[in-house]
Parts: sequence; structure tokens; C-alpha cells
Amino acid sequence: MPNGYAHGRMTSQVEKAEAFRALHHRRRALVLPNAWDVPSARVFEDAGFPAIATSSAGLMVSLGYRDGEEMPRQELVGAVGRIASRVSVPLSADVVAGYGSTPRAVTATVRRVLGVGAVGINLEDRDPAGDRLLPEAMQVRKLKAIRQLGESERVPLVINARTDALRYASGDDGERLREAIRRSIAYRDAGADCVYPMGLSDSESISRFVEALHCPVNVMVRKGLPPVAQLEELGVKRVSFGPSASYAALGLLKRASAEVLTHGTYTTLLDGAISFDELNRLAVPRSGRRPRSDS
Amino acid sequence: MPNGYAHGRMTSQVEKAEAFRALHHRRRALVLPNAWDVPSARVFEDAGFPAIATSSAGLMVSLGYRDGEEMPRQELVGAVGRIASRVSVPLSADVVAGYGSTPRAVTATVRRVLGVGAVGINLEDRDPAGDRLLPEAMQVRKLKAIRQLGESERVPLVINARTDALRYASGDDGERLREAIRRSIAYRDAGADCVYPMGLSDSESISRFVEALHCPVNVMVRKGLPPVAQLEELGVKRVSFGPSASYAALGLLKRASAEVLTHGTYTTLLDGAISFDELNRLAVPRSGRRPRSDS
Repeated sequence: MPNGYAHGRMTSQVEKAEAFRALHHRRRALVLPNAWDVPSARVFEDAGFPAIATSSAGLMVSLGYRDGEEMPRQELVGAVGRIASRVSVPLSADVVAGYGSTPRAVTATVRRVLGVGAVGINLEDRDPAGDRLLPEAMQVRKLKAIRQLGESERVPLVINARTDALRYASGDDGERLREAIRRSIAYRDAGADCVYPMGLSDSESISRFVEALHCPVNVMVRKGLPPVAQLEELGVKRVSFGPSASYAALGLLKRASAEVLTHGTYTTLLDGAISFDELNRLAVPRSGRRPRSDS
Repeated sequence: MPNGYAHGRMTSQVEKAEAFRALHHRRRALVLPNAWDVPSARVFEDAGFPAIATSSAGLMVSLGYRDGEEMPRQELVGAVGRIASRVSVPLSADVVAGYGSTPRAVTATVRRVLGVGAVGINLEDRDPAGDRLLPEAMQVRKLKAIRQLGESERVPLVINARTDALRYASGDDGERLREAIRRSIAYRDAGADCVYPMGLSDSESISRFVEALHCPVNVMVRKGLPPVAQLEELGVKRVSFGPSASYAALGLLKRASAEVLTHGTYTTLLDGAISFDELNRLAVPRSGRRPRSDS
């Protein structure tokens, strides 16, 4: 953190980072909802989730960019800061592959999201330029650099290292699972606090993965994922929504649109909706204090 | 429009404005969904709505501001432009009370939203500084100035003049309805294409209003509003969602949160959701062309 930061805020960010890390080491799994804008994050906070993450796909699409690194880094940092300034629980930011091919470039990105209040990051090993994996050795160097950054900036950030090996490694299912485990072990040893094998969802693979890793493992909500209680029995420590809340909210808009265009009625829009006052309250922190300026 | 605009875009904007106006003069009512970000607008476009509006409450809260004029004008214009650049149907922008107490200030706001591609605006007569009506005479001057702006800029924009007299005028229900009608007639005569009495929802009041106005009348989706077919029989020409789609989407997030926190299951997140590919496509125009830069 730059020296200019007020001590109060600094302490608060350190406390948040430590609280976020501790949530990965309980008997119960951390259920981590992924938000994409201020009100989605505030709904999750009000519902009682102890921490919130951003969904890169949800956040980027909401601002008119496809998932990946099309969105300028400055806009990503701005959007993370907007959310961080309006929630009081720890916020983890998805920084895709870190916006850079070198450890120096990636740590510059991480420094900026810490600077706007995030206390955790997701870093993936998918090449943003195409459907393939980034070299493992460079990913390890990036993770080590991020770990060192956290130490030098004295923000004990939580690093969630995502591997896309289950999708993009070569070989059959078994070979891809072994590659995902191998990469995840390397990422853990480089300093990741949690590993995140994208696409892992069946009990047997989850079980094999958890047993091989001996560190917190993140799985994502998707069709076929066992319920939280069963994941906890399998040893999973973090269950994130991924972009699923964006998928669900936009699915609802499709249904509401079809209803009003076909039948001229508003049931989908009106049933279970929140009120104007409730919406307005979601713009600002729970305490009601005005967030610091975005400018 | 500044002279520097390309003729092609200019023509397209004029055509969009004319198409949008024509949608107010059909036998069928224009059902106008209010979006707040890029994917909500793109879902509405894909569903087949012939035009889209922004919801000030939905849009502002999504970016961390309460409804009103807390959000800097430049951010509002940026958000409108982001949506306008990614949909191909006409877009109407809610500019609240216009960000200014004079006709000159309000037309500066309207010029900017036209500059980023909007072809219609909502202007309300509620004082953004508090729960009261702005003076009618000044509102009339603002509307006349906006009409003149459209002529001098050669963008035949659709002006929707909202009155909040049903909420903030003095007297009983009958007196407030009469004041809403009186103000709406003045706004129509000042150049508004459509009038929008906020809060009008029962058939009898709608009928009285439509008969008194002899111009397109906008009503908003809310509990108790008759279905579209019945509104068409009453002579309503425009039925807008207002912030109801934001209310519904955030209500869904509340239900999904309660389900996963209480039961550890994901039915609300998964049922009826869209896919990753579908989400990603909503970031960009239907044609697949890249939008012009936001910078």
C-alpha cells in the first residue's frame, strides 16, 4: 500500500484479509457469491455471506466487454473499487490472467486492486489470447511475485489460483485431471492459499483432487455440483457462484420479457421483487455512510 | 449534433428517433423495457422489444449511486453511451430532472445524451433536492428548450415528460390527479411527445387522464397495473417497466442467496439460467461488431 493510506483503513484491510483467509480453514465450506455490480454485491452482503467475490464474466459483460482481458485494466480496477467501497465484508477480485505476461505486469495489476480495497484475487492460467494454457513455470513465477507483493505491501491477501487444465490440457479426462492436480500443487507451493480447478464438479474427481492437494480447494456452482453439505464431506473449503448469479438474473429477464410480449402480463417482473426503497439502499454502504468518491 | 459526426451515424440516429416516435402512434401500445446495463439492454433487444429505455434508479444504483442526481452527469452520459453503442434499437435515456435548474443547463445534458446515441429522453418535474415538485413554468421552459434543441441539432428526439404531481401535489387524490393532468397538458403544449404521470395505475384514473390529454400517455409496470391489452383499450400508448426489472433481478438474487445459505442447494441459481456463451454474446452488439471505444 502507498504510504499515504490512513492507518485506520490499512488496519481494516489487513483485518479483512485475515478474516477472509480464516474463512478458508473452518470445518464448514466458505460459500462465496460472485457479484458484478454494486447492488448484486450489496444483496449478497445483506443476505449474510461473510465475504464476496467478483465474477470477471459478470462484471465485464455488465460494462460491455466479453470475459477475458478486452476490458481495459483501469476499468476493471474502477469497477472493483466501486464495489469494495460499498460493502463492508472482504472482497476478492477476479483479475483473469493478471493483465500481463510477466510477474512485474501482473503484480502491478494486483497492487491496483489491493489499492481500491480488495483483499483477495483469482488468477487463472488460461491464455487470455486463446483457448490454451499458459506455461506453468511462468504462472508459478507470477504467483510467487504476488505472494511477495502481499508481504512487501503488508496486505495478507488471499490468492486463489485457478487452473483451466481440465478443459485445455491434452489427453483424456484422467490425464487432464492429473495435469490439473499437478499444476495446482505447483501453484500451492508457489504461495496460493486456495486452488480452483475450473470445471471440477463430480464427487469422485473432487475427492481425488482434495486428497492430493492438502490445501483449500474451490469449486464453482454448476449443473451437477453436489450440494454444499456433500461438498463439505468431500473436504471442499470454498464454493463460489462463478457467473451463475448473472446467468440466473439474465434468465429471469428473458422470462419476464417473453411473458410481457406474449401475454401482456407482469407476473415475472412483480413476484418476489424488491421495492424502490430497498433498491436505493443497495447503492450505498449498509451503514449509510457515503462512499468515498470514485473520481 | 456536432458537425464532426459522420453522416451515416447521423442518418441512423434520425431514423431511430423517427422510428421511436412512430411506435407511440400505433393501435398497439409500445411496451418499453427499462435496462440498467449492457446485458439487461441486450436481453431486451434479443427478446424482440422494438426500443429500450434506461431506468435512472436501476442504472444509478448499479454504479453505486442512489436514484436522483447524486451520480455525476458525466457518468450518467457514459453509462447511456455504453448501452447505446451495443444495441441497435432506439434508446431513450432517463435524465432525471436534467441536471440543472435552467433551460440552458438541461439542454446541455440532453445534447450530451444525444451525442452518445440516445434518441429519446425522460424529464421529470420532481425536485432532485427533495420530495417536492419543481415550478411548472420553469419545467415548461425546459421542455420548450429541449424541443428547440432537437430542431437545431436535427435529431427529432422523443420527449417523455414525467410529472410527479400524483405524489407531491397538494390536496386529496382527486386534486392531485387534476394537477397531474393540468401539468401534463402544459408539458404536451411545450413540446413533449408523451406524458408520464408517475404512479398512475388504476383503470379509472388512466381513462380520465388519457381522455384529457389527446397525446401518448406512458404508464409504468407496478402492482395493480392492468395487463397490456386492457391498457390498450384505455388508450395507453406506452407501458414502461420503470425499475421493475431491477427489482425482479435483485429479488431473484435474494431468493438464491437464502436457498444456498439455508439449504446448501443451487436450484434458484441454475433453473432457467442462461449459459456462459449467451452471457458473453450480450456484451457486444447483435451483429457481433465491436462497439466504438468508450474512451
